Amino acid sequence: MKTRIGIVGVSGYGGSELLRLCIGHPSFEVVYASGESTVGQTLAQRFPALAGQPTGKIVIESFVPERLAGIDLLFASLPTGKSAAALAKVPASTRIVDVGGDHRYAPGWVYGLTELPGQRERIATTTRLANPGCYPAAALLALAPLVKEGLVESEGIAIDAKSGVTGTGRGGASDFGYAETNEDLFAYGLGGHPHVPEINRTLADLGGSKASVAFTPHLVPMTRGILATCYARPRGKFDTAKLYAAAEAMYAGEPFVKIVATEKGRGPHTKWASGSNLIFISYAVNADTGLVVAVAAIDNLGKGAAGQAVQNANLMTGQAETAGLSGLPLWP
Amino acid sequence: MKTRIGIVGVSGYGGSELLRLCIGHPSFEVVYASGESTVGQTLAQRFPALAGQPTGKIVIESFVPERLAGIDLLFASLPTGKSAAALAKVPASTRIVDVGGDHRYAPGWVYGLTELPGQRERIATTTRLANPGCYPAAALLALAPLVKEGLVESEGIAIDAKSGVTGTGRGGASDFGYAETNEDLFAYGLGGHPHVPEINRTLADLGGSKASVAFTPHLVPMTRGILATCYARPRGKFDTAKLYAAAEAMYAGEPFVKIVATEKGRGPHTKWASGSNLIFISYAVNADTGLVVAVAAIDNLGKGAAGQAVQNANLMTGQAETAGLSGLPLWP
Amino acid sequence: MKTRIGIVGVSGYGGSELLRLCIGHPSFEVVYASGESTVGQTLAQRFPALAGQPTGKIVIESFVPERLAGIDLLFASLPTGKSAAALAKVPASTRIVDVGGDHRYAPGWVYGLTELPGQRERIATTTRLANPGCYPAAALLALAPLVKEGLVESEGIAIDAKSGVTGTGRGGASDFGYAETNEDLFAYGLGGHPHVPEINRTLADLGGSKASVAFTPHLVPMTRGILATCYARPRGKFDTAKLYAAAEAMYAGEPFVKIVATEKGRGPHTKWASGSNLIFISYAVNADTGLVVAVAAIDNLGKGAAGQAVQNANLMTGQAETAGLSGLPLWP
Amino acid sequence: MKTRIGIVGVSGYGGSELLRLCIGHPSFEVVYASGESTVGQTLAQRFPALAGQPTGKIVIESFVPERLAGIDLLFASLPTGKSAAALAKVPASTRIVDVGGDHRYAPGWVYGLTELPGQRERIATTTRLANPGCYPAAALLALAPLVKEGLVESEGIAIDAKSGVTGTGRGGASDFGYAETNEDLFAYGLGGHPHVPEINRTLADLGGSKASVAFTPHLVPMTRGILATCYARPRGKFDTAKLYAAAEAMYAGEPFVKIVATEKGRGPHTKWASGSNLIFISYAVNADTGLVVAVAAIDNLGKGAAGQAVQNANLMTGQAETAGLSGLPLWP
Repeated sequence: MKTRIGIVGVSGYGGSELLRLCIGHPSFEVVYASGESTVGQTLAQRFPALAGQPTGKIVIESFVPERLAGIDLLFASLPTGKSAAALAKVPASTRIVDVGGDHRYAPGWVYGLTELPGQRERIATTTRLANPGCYPAAALLALAPLVKEGLVESEGIAIDAKSGVTGTGRGGASDFGYAETNEDLFAYGLGGHPHVPEINRTLADLGGSKASVAFTPHLVPMTRGILATCYARPRGKFDTAKLYAAAEAMYAGEPFVKIVATEKGRGPHTKWASGSNLIFISYAVNADTGLVVAVAAIDNLGKGAAGQAVQNANLMTGQAETAGLSGLPLWP
Repeated sequence: MKTRIGIVGVSGYGGSELLRLCIGHPSFEVVYASGESTVGQTLAQRFPALAGQPTGKIVIESFVPERLAGIDLLFASLPTGKSAAALAKVPASTRIVDVGGDHRYAPGWVYGLTELPGQRERIATTTRLANPGCYPAAALLALAPLVKEGLVESEGIAIDAKSGVTGTGRGGASDFGYAETNEDLFAYGLGGHPHVPEINRTLADLGGSKASVAFTPHLVPMTRGILATCYARPRGKFDTAKLYAAAEAMYAGEPFVKIVATEKGRGPHTKWASGSNLIFISYAVNADTGLVVAVAAIDNLGKGAAGQAVQNANLMTGQAETAGLSGLPLWP
Repeated sequence: MKTRIGIVGVSGYGGSELLRLCIGHPSFEVVYASGESTVGQTLAQRFPALAGQPTGKIVIESFVPERLAGIDLLFASLPTGKSAAALAKVPASTRIVDVGGDHRYAPGWVYGLTELPGQRERIATTTRLANPGCYPAAALLALAPLVKEGLVESEGIAIDAKSGVTGTGRGGASDFGYAETNEDLFAYGLGGHPHVPEINRTLADLGGSKASVAFTPHLVPMTRGILATCYARPRGKFDTAKLYAAAEAMYAGEPFVKIVATEKGRGPHTKWASGSNLIFISYAVNADTGLVVAVAAIDNLGKGAAGQAVQNANLMTGQAETAGLSGLPLWP
Repeated sequence: MKTRIGIVGVSGYGGSELLRLCIGHPSFEVVYASGESTVGQTLAQRFPALAGQPTGKIVIESFVPERLAGIDLLFASLPTGKSAAALAKVPASTRIVDVGGDHRYAPGWVYGLTELPGQRERIATTTRLANPGCYPAAALLALAPLVKEGLVESEGIAIDAKSGVTGTGRGGASDFGYAETNEDLFAYGLGGHPHVPEINRTLADLGGSKASVAFTPHLVPMTRGILATCYARPRGKFDTAKLYAAAEAMYAGEPFVKIVATEKGRGPHTKWASGSNLIFISYAVNADTGLVVAVAAIDNLGKGAAGQAVQNANLMTGQAETAGLSGLPLWP
């Protein structure tokens, strides 16, 4: 029997991707969907590809926790600030993967960046899972081996991150019309960003000492993709190979982490990950300054949101960790 | 009588923009154009908007220095490595603005980043002008006031730069097809980049001590635009206002430099500069780390190439510095 | 003394482009701007490139006709349905160019497609000018010579038109977020479009008999540009040269109309016109069906809106028709 | 045991998509790949997502027909003009699906547009299958019900088709650099296009009388997607419902054909199909002219190439027709 899945926030970008992944999943069956901006529409009206399919007949509801009886696992993809209240009344027996930002490092919730040391076991036994933010997913997996092995200072790391427009969430779309966004690029969050605490906390846990990052996100004219370029001061003197060795040791056997050599000086491409749960990471020691440069590329809706969420849900429900996540990226 | 202008490399992106600016210039008259890949075509064949205009009848030639008699000023926009030999035989009486990379900080050539201290005077009296690289134009103008005033350490600065595709030059277009580039983003130059020496040299001159930068360029799916996000360690403790004060002091009265406050935490947009010679710069002290963050936005073909070149040519020929450069950016 | 200009609807895409063209115009001086969504901002806040310039200090007002004393000419760029009421109380002595849709073929208003036979004279003597729609500007100039010369049937013409996103107006931006629009393409107006009446009326006037078009607009993932591909049944048998001859005869000496031969079977590119008031037109007789194919490319904000408006304003105020409109398109 | 698959031309856009679909297919196993421009690379070097997977270890070869022993089915995706010679020596026992243009309506080859009447049976029993062109796939499925039912004249149909850049093939990429293509749109094939004969032939077969189309393709700044807007003269008088009835009758039960009502006058979006084998079709009778308008949207690499090819291969090898093709489109 399949795992019965509900999706909260199906109208947003993250919710849409969750729906796509769940429908392609061999052991999941979507039985419920809510989305405040599209209440009363069928999923087929919202996603025309579902016309004529049973899932397409599901009517999008307004979220009411009492309606969730019989649902095994709930994916919630709500704007930050909206999920804490909405999910408080969900029955304890219903597993939750919260893709939103309200429960990261909250008491009773497990932080779901699967590839961090020890995290896989915690995820498998929880019923309350907080998915990492899209930016932290990229930056933390790139930095984790270096901080854990003590190769870099964990204070004063600069994380220059670039995201496609879906990273802003669909609610922000009116701010990001095509005409304004195409051929434009800018930095934001110069006064602070909500993803910083989970980055600092995770790095501190990994390295065993205080961590601080200067995190500067940028909006790039593309739909999907995050590239995180991280600059850290080295502890001691070593070459690029040592960075790769640390990463390969930490991620040996990980199905979704690809440690890649630079080619003609180029790091990983966001397009390599499009539509997938993969993360590609490259390293370099900068010749002019000795600074360590770590670059990670993901699909912000994949490893940065829905893909990571399904990976966690697989662990929580006893599926193979890669179930429903083995499709190749869409290229070009 | 108008200044008689020749353009070497008119088929490339930089050459095209030089042509556009020169045709719109009140005191310049384009009388000669060379371009190896389009020899024998008229300018109107290459640029259909010129059909029916006198300039459109000019036939693109193969570059021969002996053909330049009667030309007052030559703009050269050739791939790095190509201009040194090509320009060696140009008569001394013909002024040259070399947009390519071969003569930056070369003996006998003036480095043409006009707004740097003392540079305007040197430019006005030279006949051999090396235009700055597109990335250095953005990063150096953002960093110059901070380094000059000693507000930041001049060693170990991370410059995370992002460029539209025209920054690669037209010769590289086959590597950057639309299908591969749209929805893609990657870092390059992880093993080094030719723009680093002129950045380090200029910063060292400004600050009076050794300078070194970890420079990481990125290719962004857009046609024009550079955004340079720079991370530097502060010397002492101060707030964002001090950074702005230094920049406003250095650039007071500069017609092309716009120091702008962040708005909702957002820095300048590359689209603000599209088609113009403007540079927009914002500053912040990062709250989590104390690192100084400087962000600059330009059009890589404007202040990063052709716009800067015309600004220099204006000085070299005694025109108003803003002649032909006062058009507003194209928005949206 | 300069012509004193007011711009109504300066916050929209059309209003922004009007501002850009007026600021670059040798005889126009912008002295007034209104825009309901940005009331109270200065023009420099809205357009950062204006920082430090006198025009940048103008405060955007809410539109009040009584505030227009001393304004020589008013450009209005309001959503269709909004301008009729707003402009009714403008003093008769203030010239109006209405870029919106409310006054096309309205009594007392001249239809401002300058290159149509006899139109230039009517425009020069009116104080109430209705600018053509963006789609009609492209399609009508392509079809006019053919219909006037009786080369094609004026009934049953299919006009397949494609527009960049700015054609929808800025108010529609929330419907056209970057994420939804990039990599997407669709036909709209399948049940009718407000531009049809002015197309049919103009073609009927030209040909002296009833005209009807099947007009299907499409939204294309680009910011600017309209391409209109028109299919008409020939009257009699002739080859492509006859189509070109008719167009060249009608448009001889027109500064903004470029009749271009196809090259490798390719018609004109929208990018050839970007930021300019140019229109490029090509013709072919389809070998398989004998149908006449006419293709026109413009910038929808140029010849399709603000450029055409300035051209009309030049005529209305006795300027050279090309004043402020001679800049080359931005390429690439 | 899985069907052993070879892919000829794996380096191109079509070949890449075939690889993606075959790897996700439950009954296919890729065992061979050739690609002249990438000979000697492993598939993992070409497609970094395959790093660490067995398929990633396959070395791309130069195509030699004698190397194909043990391969059950060969997908060939070569430029038009290249496949006839290359495939002539393939053993008769090896099934071939030729995605290229050389064998359409060639003797001994079945034309593989599965949903056409009677075609499914022919496909299931052939070993030589010619996949339809990308444009014909879209236009023919939209027009087939109308021509078969005699609702429209089969002569003088205008097909205005728009394609993303991958439709040009990877070999043409140097002509379509990002900088030239972004923000550009143009018609091509004004002097004829190789897809016309298969369209005319198929329509003539369907309608039982001569057919002719004025086919005008356009290049749109997007990576994937084709939209075909077709204009045909009606035979007699009827309303839009009659068009829908004909299409719904012909395509009842078809898993990949979605007949969709227009919504707010909008036809189907290309993005609805991205990455899938779906086709979406809408109809309208134009109110002003009575012309019938049929609009179809596909992914040119899906239903227009690799998706259609896998659908055919499924039939040829006795698989479920939808095997490996049930994934939802990538949105947004």
